[in-house]
Amino acid sequence: MNIVYKTLWIALLTIFPVTAAVGQSTALTGDYRDTAQKIIAKAQNDKEGFERLTEFVDAYPHRLSGSESLEASIDWIIRQMEKDGELNDVRTQKVMVPHWVRGKESATLIAPLNSNLPMLGLGGSVGTPKEGIEAEVLVVDSFDDLNQKSEQAKGKIVLYNIPFTSYGQTVRYRIDGAVEAAKHGAVASLIRSVTPYSMITPHTGTSRYQEGVKKIPHAAITIEHAKMLQRMQDRGEELLINLKMEAETLPDAQSRNIIAEIKGSVKPEEIVVIGGHIDAWDVGQGAMDDAGGCFAAWQALRIIKELGLKPRRTIRLVMWTNEENGLQGATEYKNMVQKNGELENHVLAIESDSGVFDPKGFGFTGSDEAYKMVQAIGKLLNPIKAGTINRGGGGADIGPIMREGVPGMGLNVDSSRYFWYHHSAADTIDKLKESEFNNCAAAMAVMAYVAADMEQALPRN
Amino acid sequence: MNIVYKTLWIALLTIFPVTAAVGQSTALTGDYRDTAQKIIAKAQNDKEGFERLTEFVDAYPHRLSGSESLEASIDWIIRQMEKDGELNDVRTQKVMVPHWVRGKESATLIAPLNSNLPMLGLGGSVGTPKEGIEAEVLVVDSFDDLNQKSEQAKGKIVLYNIPFTSYGQTVRYRIDGAVEAAKHGAVASLIRSVTPYSMITPHTGTSRYQEGVKKIPHAAITIEHAKMLQRMQDRGEELLINLKMEAETLPDAQSRNIIAEIKGSVKPEEIVVIGGHIDAWDVGQGAMDDAGGCFAAWQALRIIKELGLKPRRTIRLVMWTNEENGLQGATEYKNMVQKNGELENHVLAIESDSGVFDPKGFGFTGSDEAYKMVQAIGKLLNPIKAGTINRGGGGADIGPIMREGVPGMGLNVDSSRYFWYHHSAADTIDKLKESEFNNCAAAMAVMAYVAADMEQALPRN
Repeated sequence: MNIVYKTLWIALLTIFPVTAAVGQSTALTGDYRDTAQKIIAKAQNDKEGFERLTEFVDAYPHRLSGSESLEASIDWIIRQMEKDGELNDVRTQKVMVPHWVRGKESATLIAPLNSNLPMLGLGGSVGTPKEGIEAEVLVVDSFDDLNQKSEQAKGKIVLYNIPFTSYGQTVRYRIDGAVEAAKHGAVASLIRSVTPYSMITPHTGTSRYQEGVKKIPHAAITIEHAKMLQRMQDRGEELLINLKMEAETLPDAQSRNIIAEIKGSVKPEEIVVIGGHIDAWDVGQGAMDDAGGCFAAWQALRIIKELGLKPRRTIRLVMWTNEENGLQGATEYKNMVQKNGELENHVLAIESDSGVFDPKGFGFTGSDEAYKMVQAIGKLLNPIKAGTINRGGGGADIGPIMREGVPGMGLNVDSSRYFWYHHSAADTIDKLKESEFNNCAAAMAVMAYVAADMEQALPRN
Repeated sequence: MNIVYKTLWIALLTIFPVTAAVGQSTALTGDYRDTAQKIIAKAQNDKEGFERLTEFVDAYPHRLSGSESLEASIDWIIRQMEKDGELNDVRTQKVMVPHWVRGKESATLIAPLNSNLPMLGLGGSVGTPKEGIEAEVLVVDSFDDLNQKSEQAKGKIVLYNIPFTSYGQTVRYRIDGAVEAAKHGAVASLIRSVTPYSMITPHTGTSRYQEGVKKIPHAAITIEHAKMLQRMQDRGEELLINLKMEAETLPDAQSRNIIAEIKGSVKPEEIVVIGGHIDAWDVGQGAMDDAGGCFAAWQALRIIKELGLKPRRTIRLVMWTNEENGLQGATEYKNMVQKNGELENHVLAIESDSGVFDPKGFGFTGSDEAYKMVQAIGKLLNPIKAGTINRGGGGADIGPIMREGVPGMGLNVDSSRYFWYHHSAADTIDKLKESEFNNCAAAMAVMAYVAADMEQALPRN
């Protein structure tokens, strides 16, 4: 047994002192079983966490980087944490963030018939002249298709009519659609919203430009209208659209990461970091993306504190700013902990940013040995069916520290409708359930607490 | 055996010449089984009907009574029917219809925070002054609740936050909400949209005023915002809304019912009437409400004609106008057939106005004897699982002739999502499937053909 495996087994013995030692596959009997059950019970009986989340998103629905509303929402949380008096070292970390503003916007079909096309400009997009950009439309079904129709794209508005397959596949057209269209001489670009389902629901999200390529306006229309324009083009009809966007990027603004802790009782310098992102798009309430994740993580710490549990290591709650269009909160957090020497002491990072629906488990990125240990912790979550630990996973906000070697994990939930609402006006609190939110808080609390308290830290690669 | 039963048995014998006669419950072996199978096969292999429907709703998405678009859409259908040359006596019946126009409209939450509230004015509503109506909001959960809070309603905008139970139950607040709120001195009224599901989706629909009660503006907001305003009120927050509506009712306008036939080969004076309504709200495409029903009925006649079938009685296709906000097309049709003596010769009326999703069967209103006969016809639709004939049913457009004694039936379909889209911008063609539309056409064709061709007419009460 090499030293790594020895480390692993010591850790596992902490969880399964008897059964694991004799290699039996019996039920979980370890030290943490009772504690996990207490955490789950307390989480499930809670009313305050979800109510707090609801009040928060009702009061601060739009939390785009650079907005007054985001900063006011951060103030609200800080005030609430100070009033609670439960967490240590409640503080903020200043972060400069991009400041994109949408302004008024519209897309109007002029021919073959006059019709308003509900739309959302994409984050980072430039605006149009005041009178709008009026141009014929070329519908394409891929970047390849656009390449083949390069001659036709010149002077046109290119519409990418891309059916949703996976987010990763489909989002490429949101991210790079303007650059690719501009390369072929298009005057603006539109995407079919990145979602598998629509009720005339446009979805926003970030996009980017490329140096040396003309910046053209970039916006999303609905599935319904993208399909309709495709049909019209297929029938040989000439399509004319007027696109008006006041969008612009202002000078960077100051925002803040929120940080609060439960100090470790034995090794306070070692840190399990847990959280989500506090910024959100300027439509809907950002209830699942990602106020829900922030509040579930917050709730996890409150439960641990209120149960009087004293983990050996520090559990640090971070609500990162600017995940949606810049990742400056995540980057500056990494810079800070790199500079102050804390980075090496981050034993685990946990993010919830896939909605707070019925939790299934976690996706984990880290060493094989650490994977086995978090799988063992996962078993403590079997009573709420949230114990499945898959390989791979993390989160955008913990990405920068994960790339520096910190083991990371993302909460996995029932994702069947997440992308119906993602980045749209329909991301509202009524889509979430208190019971599911509470189970998310339970899953995060159990994972964070055991990882922070077990004798052996999760081994890095 | 009394005379009624004798009539019934003669009819059934036409369908089950052997098995029914000897009282066996064996499989259907009657004269119509082969014909029904041919009809179903032809319907299922069709591409043109659904394509035609798609082109139609893409070209004429808004078909509100009084609009140029509705009349242009009627012209398109007449032209197409004349070009086809398949149906007899293609004609229109002039009908005067209400002419309500929406104009620009908005609802803005002013306090406790500033937020646009997506909304749709309700059909028939009066408008607001140009600067809008700005007033505090009183959220109620029933007419009873409003009665109890009568004192608080004065000078306020009343919001009915009524969860969807059934359409019939919930729609009462859309129909009569303005009248009831005005009785308590409210200055405007809002409803939570009549739907079980929302993605920030307002739903319109008709409403009414009452003589002697002040006409106040009446509009629908989304489920999400109705719930949010309820929560805010429950927290003791003061709600202020500015409602702006340009809505007005212009003088009645001329519209038309569309009528076309397959003339009966033996008893051309006897009529099976089949159809839907051609008007639709001024949002979405009215694809399922009710272009789909009109086109499925049209398709039913085309299939019968193209198969060379010659029913004994006349099958008459009617696309009624003004179902949504006046029923003038249905009323004038009844008046016409009452006046010209055709009413007594209407042996059956079939309407499709519940969407053209997967068909399940029909709801039937008529004599017990006729019910047994249409149940027997229904068996011919078992191969596509559309053979269930329930008691009760019909349709708004055939209501006036049904009340004069004509047996009536409505096509029943999988209704799981119908009210998600009903009267909203999301009632678009992409929600429908060609295969399901084709099965609806098959069900209507089989029912209409056999009812028109069997020796004995369906007996009235």
